[in-house]
Order: sequence, then structure tokens, then C-alpha cells
Amino acid sequence: MALAQQKSFDRFDPVAVRHAARRGELTGDTAGLAPGRVQGNLAILPKDLADDFLRFCVLNPKPCPIIGMSEPGNPAIPALGIDLDIRTDIPRYRVWKDGVMVDDPTDIRSVWRDDLVAFVIGCSYSFEEALIADGLPIRHIACGTTVPMWRTNIACTPAGPFAGPTVVSMRPMKPADAIRAIQITSRFPAVHGAPLHIGLPEAIGIMDITKPDYGQPAEVKPDELPVFWACGVTPQSVIAAAKPPFAITHAPGSMLVTDLLNSRVASL
Amino acid sequence: MALAQQKSFDRFDPVAVRHAARRGELTGDTAGLAPGRVQGNLAILPKDLADDFLRFCVLNPKPCPIIGMSEPGNPAIPALGIDLDIRTDIPRYRVWKDGVMVDDPTDIRSVWRDDLVAFVIGCSYSFEEALIADGLPIRHIACGTTVPMWRTNIACTPAGPFAGPTVVSMRPMKPADAIRAIQITSRFPAVHGAPLHIGLPEAIGIMDITKPDYGQPAEVKPDELPVFWACGVTPQSVIAAAKPPFAITHAPGSMLVTDLLNSRVASL
Repeated sequence: MALAQQKSFDRFDPVAVRHAARRGELTGDTAGLAPGRVQGNLAILPKDLADDFLRFCVLNPKPCPIIGMSEPGNPAIPALGIDLDIRTDIPRYRVWKDGVMVDDPTDIRSVWRDDLVAFVIGCSYSFEEALIADGLPIRHIACGTTVPMWRTNIACTPAGPFAGPTVVSMRPMKPADAIRAIQITSRFPAVHGAPLHIGLPEAIGIMDITKPDYGQPAEVKPDELPVFWACGVTPQSVIAAAKPPFAITHAPGSMLVTDLLNSRVASL
Repeated sequence: MALAQQKSFDRFDPVAVRHAARRGELTGDTAGLAPGRVQGNLAILPKDLADDFLRFCVLNPKPCPIIGMSEPGNPAIPALGIDLDIRTDIPRYRVWKDGVMVDDPTDIRSVWRDDLVAFVIGCSYSFEEALIADGLPIRHIACGTTVPMWRTNIACTPAGPFAGPTVVSMRPMKPADAIRAIQITSRFPAVHGAPLHIGLPEAIGIMDITKPDYGQPAEVKPDELPVFWACGVTPQSVIAAAKPPFAITHAPGSMLVTDLLNSRVASL
């Protein structure tokens, strides 16, 4: 049983979580593990594409906030964690060839190459933790579903082969809660920051608020507004569209758990 | 001609503006005068009511942020301005008896009493200046009209005879501008701070967004949301409802110009 397995390591210690993934004892979602620590999206690309991807992220910091990256071929990212090995420490990966997913292993040592560069990109788990700590209800968490996400009509600034729409995640909130959520997430520019949009889905090209492009629907009640944040699925969607010969990402929900404290990536 | 009269003093100097009001050379609106300086709403009450009113303001800081108050009978408020005389330095006053306006003089020395306490309450001019400096359009300013205001279903916390609904002002904004406006006004808790509400007028008891209770209508376009801030008309409305035997307020738009810098009342 997965839960029993996961009890065999210290779920509060980010190093223990990474080691459990490394040993193959943790192969699923990282939500709720190592509370207070930053979790990140993963994108690994060959060096000849990594320069363009780096530029893409820098030009689109709201959907693609880089919180760490590796040297080519080096699986360590010391700034993000002690004894971190990007090839083993994520519970589950996705391996892509020419834009097609060809494998979802729990370890990528067998496909690692000397020219690969790993990018770790901020994730909404960090700001959701801050929202929850402030007493704000988050619908998809309360319902145990995946946050709903949409491709918008807000184009990213392109760089080399990387181009495409900004993907947003949506959390329905009462207006006063939405105002408070804007205040709180403004403090977290390293993990998507303030919302991109609020209240008028059609204005950003979302024609049916009940039908997300990714994730699961979340009801927007009559006394609520939909609040939209830039989403870390953007870089994955852009990589998929660019169809690079080779790429590796994390599997959805199976993030890199870093040693960084969420509180320390707050700007204020 | 009023404009010509107003050119006879230094419109950028808050002391000169107050002295012009004192001399009777300035008898109208203070909007645009002494740019960068805090302007305030005025409420003057006899000491036996002032204690309850002070408590009311402290309990309702968003609509009633006190930026200064006088000692009973003392017309100076040194913390707000050099050589400030609250009896002469506001261009136009309103004198109230039993809740009825009985006069609108340009000078209140003849009705001043030793038991009167003056309260100066923050005003939206300060945060509007910050919004404009950030390039955000403000509909009622662009149209040259008065900001639209409504009594809401958000009750103030009562104190003694002072009770009533929170009054809000509304500025229509595109969603991304509204998010930016929330960030900017959050820095100004001394002048109403972040909005109270956004996007769903009915939720706060506003049934017709085209018909304000005070001020003039401002069009909300299809790609905009109405954004609602707590308003300094709240304490005036509460005083009118309490029908105190004697009270003095400023005339609408004719504010106290202080020496305080708007930038210095920002919390960050």
C-alpha cells in the first residue's frame, strides 16, 4: 500500500523525501510532503536547446520563474538541496522524444547525458501553502481534485523554438478573499506571484469555465470570482509544442522537493 | 474668475494652499492642489461625543483611518502641518445642528468652541495619486466627474450613537489593472488601503451599479470589473445619522491639505 510505504521515511524532511524517491519508495504525488519547503517543476533539455529555453523563461517570468538550474551534465543543484541528484530524486519522470512521451520512469540515470541541463521552475504549491496558512479556502484542495488549468490568449514572448500561450490555473474565491489572495501571492514572485487575471474568463480566451484544458473542473459559485494565476504547466506545454528531439520533465504532481523554505522565497 | 484667483498663491505648497483658504482666496475644491501631499476629511464634534467617535474610527479603520486629531478647543494640529488652524484652513465647511446642515461657511471661527475636537481622516486622493503615478486610468478623473459611492450592506462596528453602513467608492478597471491597483493601495492603509470588494456589486448590497447613492455614475465597460474601496464619506454619513446637536465637516471636495507626503504614509 502506497501510504504505508510512504510512512517509512520522514515526510517532514526534504532530504528524506528525495532519498525515498531515489530508493524507489516514493513514486507518486509530492503534495503535502516536506511542508514549508519549495517544490519545483522540472524541465531537462540538451544544451543546444537549453540556451533558448533559459531565455524563454527569463522573458516570461510569471509562468516560468526559474528557481534553480544545473550545469550541463551535472545532476547536482547544490543551491536547491543537499545531496540532490536530479536523475533520481523526483518520484516519477516523463521522457519525451520529438514531442512524444516515450516513458515515465522513476529514475533517469539510464537516459542521462553529458549535455543535459536541468531547469527547476517555481510551483503554485508554495503560494497555496501561504494562502492556506492565511485561512483562505482553496476549492480544488478541499475537493481533492487537480487544479483546473487553461491555455489563454496571452501569448508568451517567444525565444528560439519555444513559443505558445500562457497557461493559467484557476481558484474560485469570494471577492474579499480574492483581494487577500492577491496581497499574499504578490509576496511570492519566485512562484508565479500575483494573479494574471480575475473575474472575466472570456477576456483571456477562456470560453467555458467548466471545461479546463488540463486538470479537473472547480465550481465557481455565484458569490465567487475565478482568480487566475500563471501556471508552471506553461513551460511543459511550450516544450511539447516545440517537439525537441529529447526532453525530460517531471510527471504531473510529482515535483522536485527542495530544501528552500517557502517563507524565504517571499519578497517581503 | 476662480482659476485666476487661485493662481495668486503657490499651488504646490501646502502651507500656501492653507493660507489661501484662510484668506478666503480659495473657497472650492482642493483636488490637484499641493500634489504629493496628504489631503484629509474633516469631522469636528463636541468632546462628549468625540470619545465615542474616536472609538468608532478605531473600530472601523478601513473607512475611517484617522491621520490626525486635535486637543479639545485647540485649533492647531501640529502633526499635520506648520501653522495649521483647523478653523480657517479648509476652503469650505458644513455646519450641522441635530443632523441638519445649517450653514456652509469658509471660516468657522465664529462657531468655534472650547469643547470641540477635530478629526482628520484619510482620503482616496492619496491612493489615487499613487494609481495615476503607476499609469492606471481612473474613470471619474478622466471624465471630470465625482467618484460614484454607495452605502453597502457591510455594517460598521457601532460605538455609542455612531453606527451605519460602510460607504464605498467605485473605480472600474480592467482585471489586470485591478490586480495592480490592489497591490498599490495595499501599501496605503492610512488612506483606506486595499479594496473591500471587487466584481460582484450585489454581494455587498449594490443593486444598480449605474445609480450611485453619492457622487456621479461611472461606466463599467464589458471588459472591466467594478473595484470598491472603503470611503471617507462613511464617517460623514454616520454622523448625519447620529444627529448630534452640533458638528462641523468639510464641504465635499474641499479637503484639509496637510504637509504630510503621500509617499510617507505608504506602509512599504
